[in-house]
Amino acid sequence: MIRKLSNGMTVAVEKMPNAKSASFTILLQRGAAYDPEGKAGLTAVMTEMLSRGCAGKNAVELISELDSLGIERSFDCSAEYVSLSASLLPDKLDRALNLFFDIITKPNCDQNEFKQSVELSIQSILAIEDNPAEKLMNELGLRFFPYPLGRPVKGIISEIKKLTVRDIKKAMSEFSPETAILSIAGNIEPDEVLVSVEKIFSVWKTASEIRKLSLTPPKELPSHIEKALGAQVQIGLAAPFVSAKDPNYPKAILLLMILTSGMSSRLFVEVREKRGLVYAVRAFYSLMQDNGAMIVYAGTTPDKAEECIQVICAELERLKEGANEKELERGKIKYRSSLIMACEMPSSRAQAMAVDILRFDRVRSISEMIESVTKIELEEMNSFLKSKRILPKIILTLGPEWRNKSGDGGKKI
Amino acid sequence: MIRKLSNGMTVAVEKMPNAKSASFTILLQRGAAYDPEGKAGLTAVMTEMLSRGCAGKNAVELISELDSLGIERSFDCSAEYVSLSASLLPDKLDRALNLFFDIITKPNCDQNEFKQSVELSIQSILAIEDNPAEKLMNELGLRFFPYPLGRPVKGIISEIKKLTVRDIKKAMSEFSPETAILSIAGNIEPDEVLVSVEKIFSVWKTASEIRKLSLTPPKELPSHIEKALGAQVQIGLAAPFVSAKDPNYPKAILLLMILTSGMSSRLFVEVREKRGLVYAVRAFYSLMQDNGAMIVYAGTTPDKAEECIQVICAELERLKEGANEKELERGKIKYRSSLIMACEMPSSRAQAMAVDILRFDRVRSISEMIESVTKIELEEMNSFLKSKRILPKIILTLGPEWRNKSGDGGKKI
Repeated sequence: MIRKLSNGMTVAVEKMPNAKSASFTILLQRGAAYDPEGKAGLTAVMTEMLSRGCAGKNAVELISELDSLGIERSFDCSAEYVSLSASLLPDKLDRALNLFFDIITKPNCDQNEFKQSVELSIQSILAIEDNPAEKLMNELGLRFFPYPLGRPVKGIISEIKKLTVRDIKKAMSEFSPETAILSIAGNIEPDEVLVSVEKIFSVWKTASEIRKLSLTPPKELPSHIEKALGAQVQIGLAAPFVSAKDPNYPKAILLLMILTSGMSSRLFVEVREKRGLVYAVRAFYSLMQDNGAMIVYAGTTPDKAEECIQVICAELERLKEGANEKELERGKIKYRSSLIMACEMPSSRAQAMAVDILRFDRVRSISEMIESVTKIELEEMNSFLKSKRILPKIILTLGPEWRNKSGDGGKKI
Repeated sequence: MIRKLSNGMTVAVEKMPNAKSASFTILLQRGAAYDPEGKAGLTAVMTEMLSRGCAGKNAVELISELDSLGIERSFDCSAEYVSLSASLLPDKLDRALNLFFDIITKPNCDQNEFKQSVELSIQSILAIEDNPAEKLMNELGLRFFPYPLGRPVKGIISEIKKLTVRDIKKAMSEFSPETAILSIAGNIEPDEVLVSVEKIFSVWKTASEIRKLSLTPPKELPSHIEKALGAQVQIGLAAPFVSAKDPNYPKAILLLMILTSGMSSRLFVEVREKRGLVYAVRAFYSLMQDNGAMIVYAGTTPDKAEECIQVICAELERLKEGANEKELERGKIKYRSSLIMACEMPSSRAQAMAVDILRFDRVRSISEMIESVTKIELEEMNSFLKSKRILPKIILTLGPEWRNKSGDGGKKI
């Protein structure tokens, strides 16, 4: 059930008759990509501030109220949005929604809490340096997606240090009900919940104009980042891929299942099982507004980096030759069973509903999603695979130096 | 419902009327601690081999069969056991159990697959070097737990290189139904499932004598591991803690909730929120046979390492002063709601059931677990907190050098 409130906020509610708990997700479409030039990290600091007091309650009072409701909460941000999620027992839903309304619309923005939030945001950026896989993904996004969509979400330390509480207040005032999405799933009565949501959220009004991002192509940056003391070469590939609204989206999902899902998937078999090149290799979808990307990640030793990249590229290339009936069937079964299992949890369902509204302007039912993939026939799939070549636009490595066998010292394949 | 099969295997089955899927977990009590001296890593390689062919099926045939059943599987090992888990739709349960029986009892142990498994195991050890938090936890266990329980599970590269297929075969022959545990939860009929399990597994017989581990105290090792290029100092503390069979176990759980669960927990408030010392700090239970440990983990910058350790130690020390009514209530609510939410998934429930049999020789119901914690009264809790001091035995740091303010250059607090 989907409603638009009078203030423009989109609300989706779904009863899960078998669930005991309930979950909700709020997406606020003012993510890190909206941070002004010179203020990269503003959204990360703001997200940290969300649990630090609202409506006159100080940070300690707010968090002990959340904890005393038994809420599992998660506040997070991406380039596109800030997301607030909560899982809880259904009888606490009303109080939780009231509290989250205050968190979003009546932040205290206390100076002292701001200082702590800046400090923690800096710590979290420093921690990336100790996590080469995360660093690789940041750098890959920066090279692939239009700027500032690909700008690292956690920001830049020197710019965070220059932020003020006023920046936070301004950014928070840019949260708008017109672009906000609230999804609720679990052991709830949709009609009652909607009445309650309307009462709580409809007084929220848009405070400032909704900005459109102006995007520019990503800059050319080096294709290798030297980290001499790393043990492994981290490898990332990014290729343009079908966007969510493309009618071929279900086929792209099935392509990914064939390529990377399960132990008999192509990447797993060719890169890991047959050649022992990596302990972990995976490909996944990355969507950013209308930009679809297929990202492939692998980590290996310097002597195997070249072969690893070659095998991955060969597998992407080989997709054009089509799949066989068995692979197609396995991909469908895998998609169906993992979707059913994932959707037993109200938290995953609420999250999926919110993202559906963001990407498709509607909520797809689980059976619709399954149907869209399982109905694809081999011939159809193979003509898609033939026409839709996956060509890596960026190949990035991070770690100790490695060289290709031609010996020219370059990092290009 | 718990049964002992005629061959000694323990089986627990639980119907979850609201679930759509089913999950099972098999624990084989022959984990990495049983690897002979000079063969550290044998169990890790063996675990990798489990999906590489059985009963005449080669690796590709086996994994495509698993995938075509839509099974989400996970094969893993710890010091104590090898665990095999599967989540699937209930109509596939019978075929899956048959397949897992073959995996455990009829491994191919193919030479070529062995080579690949060795290669991958080495890769996974190298990857630890790029993951300072994982490395810290390995090194902390080595310093805290009796040897070889605390020996790093993934093993030692030089010893893995000397392994042969015969070592794998020998280790696999040490899997025994007498110490094996199988738990099944989800949308299933327990009576039918038990008949089926009996039919499949009762022909499995113990092949070699069950070894008892002989344990020795951990060696004295340095309290700082230098990683000059790391951005953060990784901090780990380990303190002896209540074991699972101790009647005070529920109080220890509640202690942990007060100390570390939720945003209003003591560590979170004192270390993160008030002082901004770390982005992430957490404490958790670690159980190894009859050894209970409380582990505290934090990562911070070198200039804050000392204060961070001091604040953590002060919080552990302060526990003896007791909790207040509010903290106690929040801890109980948190425990109750997170347990209910976790147990909506057949996979978490099956996992919990298997571990219960390992730790308690029986399966606790969810309501029993909740009751055991929520019935604790403040006075009782506080006399436990007063008597049960949490004294860190090991404080380990990993990363760039840091010094304490007294300036003696030592790493001890």
